[in-house]
Amino acid sequence: MANPRKIPATTAGKIIKCKAAVLWGPRQPLRMQEVEVAPPQKMEVRVKILFTSVCPGDIVTWSFQGPFFPMIMGHEATGVVESVGEGVTGLVAGDTVMTVYTGECGECAHCKSEESNLCSLLCFKFIEGLKICEGTPRFLVEGKPAYHYATTSTFTEYTVCPAGCVVKINRLAPLDKICALSCGVVSGLGSVLNVARPTEDSSVAIFGLGLTGLAAAEAARIAGASQIICIDVDVNKLRKAVGFGMTYFLNPPRYNMPIKDIIVDMTRGGADRSVDCTGDISCMRCAFECVHKEWGIAVLNALSREKLRTDSLKFAGERTLKGCYFGNYKPRSQLPSLVDMVMKGELDMDKFITYRFRFAEINEALLRSLTDATILLCIVAME
Amino acid sequence: MANPRKIPATTAGKIIKCKAAVLWGPRQPLRMQEVEVAPPQKMEVRVKILFTSVCPGDIVTWSFQGPFFPMIMGHEATGVVESVGEGVTGLVAGDTVMTVYTGECGECAHCKSEESNLCSLLCFKFIEGLKICEGTPRFLVEGKPAYHYATTSTFTEYTVCPAGCVVKINRLAPLDKICALSCGVVSGLGSVLNVARPTEDSSVAIFGLGLTGLAAAEAARIAGASQIICIDVDVNKLRKAVGFGMTYFLNPPRYNMPIKDIIVDMTRGGADRSVDCTGDISCMRCAFECVHKEWGIAVLNALSREKLRTDSLKFAGERTLKGCYFGNYKPRSQLPSLVDMVMKGELDMDKFITYRFRFAEINEALLRSLTDATILLCIVAME
Repeated sequence: MANPRKIPATTAGKIIKCKAAVLWGPRQPLRMQEVEVAPPQKMEVRVKILFTSVCPGDIVTWSFQGPFFPMIMGHEATGVVESVGEGVTGLVAGDTVMTVYTGECGECAHCKSEESNLCSLLCFKFIEGLKICEGTPRFLVEGKPAYHYATTSTFTEYTVCPAGCVVKINRLAPLDKICALSCGVVSGLGSVLNVARPTEDSSVAIFGLGLTGLAAAEAARIAGASQIICIDVDVNKLRKAVGFGMTYFLNPPRYNMPIKDIIVDMTRGGADRSVDCTGDISCMRCAFECVHKEWGIAVLNALSREKLRTDSLKFAGERTLKGCYFGNYKPRSQLPSLVDMVMKGELDMDKFITYRFRFAEINEALLRSLTDATILLCIVAME
Repeated sequence: MANPRKIPATTAGKIIKCKAAVLWGPRQPLRMQEVEVAPPQKMEVRVKILFTSVCPGDIVTWSFQGPFFPMIMGHEATGVVESVGEGVTGLVAGDTVMTVYTGECGECAHCKSEESNLCSLLCFKFIEGLKICEGTPRFLVEGKPAYHYATTSTFTEYTVCPAGCVVKINRLAPLDKICALSCGVVSGLGSVLNVARPTEDSSVAIFGLGLTGLAAAEAARIAGASQIICIDVDVNKLRKAVGFGMTYFLNPPRYNMPIKDIIVDMTRGGADRSVDCTGDISCMRCAFECVHKEWGIAVLNALSREKLRTDSLKFAGERTLKGCYFGNYKPRSQLPSLVDMVMKGELDMDKFITYRFRFAEINEALLRSLTDATILLCIVAME
């Protein structure tokens, strides 16, 4: 068997023809087609994709009623750099890499601030993330330019990304596992390890047991929290959560008092930390109101279009409410440390992976994500 | 002149008769009367008051329609320990001290936590703070027990406080100035120095230019902030604020766009830090919404009975909203460092002191606080 990580030396600077899964309209099956992938332009990198994951978030895009078709979806992947465009430093052909939908240009005020991971240039913006193909297209399918997705587009054998969306990682890393690291798992881990930062033996309440919530529970366990209280209205999620550090499960409909009060009782005054992973405005409020006076920190991972409304007196108790995006990780600088955690066995990615597919089966992966509410991640192997 | 700091050796264990300013009903003039002050009981300290301040907050108590009369008001003072009750450690007769209305028992979970200053036993609670006189009274006036105020009661020549509400300080400190340190000034300073922690050359927006707001502006200057934007609807406060680190003054009625947007423009994206000192719910919201993405921290110093309602998407930008009480200072452990700042000239207390009175004139001090909206602090010398 040929080494899949080996890059042919002859493709640099040339158009590559390869297979991609193309979306031509909302909720359509992806069409496996030959596409042309242009060489990387200034500050861009062309990557040979080896593994990509289909996370539940992709379903939102798949259902999106926008005008951005044809489009190549996918945003979490591992692979090898095929060639680099003008001006790219720190990456060369043959480097083992992850793609990330939120990047790190290294030059803006946010990248230069120790406190920020919201790169002014490459932080995820839905519309801008579709536009890398504008002007001179990087993908051509049936002779038409194809839109990017999330600046990355990984449902293809080769893609072109801004260099800031490509993270160089240990070449010995298990690429089939860590391709799933860069979205919900990272958000959940970082919201605990980087933002909430529970101390040993502390209590952490986690609202919502999807991928992000389970990753948050796992991070609370890694941080040494002894009371990890998971809250979800879906009892089917209970079984899954047991393997992720959870020590208590609360199903709100089972109680005839507010779940906030249950948590305050269980933790003798309030959880030391809490993390909302639901995006439900009442859960977000509860996550804040259930934390302990003073050292209590509530972290919001998800969004809501509704206004958050809470008792301002809660702040008199010095509680903290903080938003979190992409786990507060600076992707290029800090994700390699998570890869190291996986390689050292400190973080078990297998627990997050529900199904594995071949690239030809990508529509089945999408269908599973759409129909199975308990799914975490589907991994797709390109070869 | 006799040394006012000298304590007669003969009073320990005995009732002391001295002068106190007694409040017999809401909005009544204080009556200068002889009171009996009992010896300190277990874990209590009897303090000879040398200076006390009348801060605008005392007016709220003076107007309070409660049943707690007669009462001895006052909560900020400096003096000398006269004697200590059973079990008191770390304080002996002759020690130079400050009284604080929010204490530090040193034993509870909050005192033992590095993150907390909300002592479970001695953190300010209005009703409990009145009750030190219950059971065996510490103050008798006209043969009746007098209520304490804020666990301290400093409008008297001698008081009895829990040891946790007595802070030992440098005996060479300027007691006539630092007696004003322990309320609004501490809250404002600490909300910036301990909680917001602006970095050098950063921007800080401060809402409300009362005592706390001015102290916050002064702290922002001490921390090296270069853009200190003060917001108040009262332009009379402008003149005063110039001396307190302020670099810009915004008077919201003068603008026909939201003040939040003005601040975002002035600071190119949002203030690095903001501090609300108004307790007005719309200002609290504005203080949060005007901070910069990601590293922006808004600190709430004051309370409102209304619900705080804000756009949850603001949290997606990783902004932080945090409450603050008593400047997050642990009073006994950390206020001595503020006294050192005053002694080194790093913090100028004179700027906060508007008037000085003798104890006999304490009703005039109250009247001034009631009628002069621009007043900061009145200092009352006991001898």
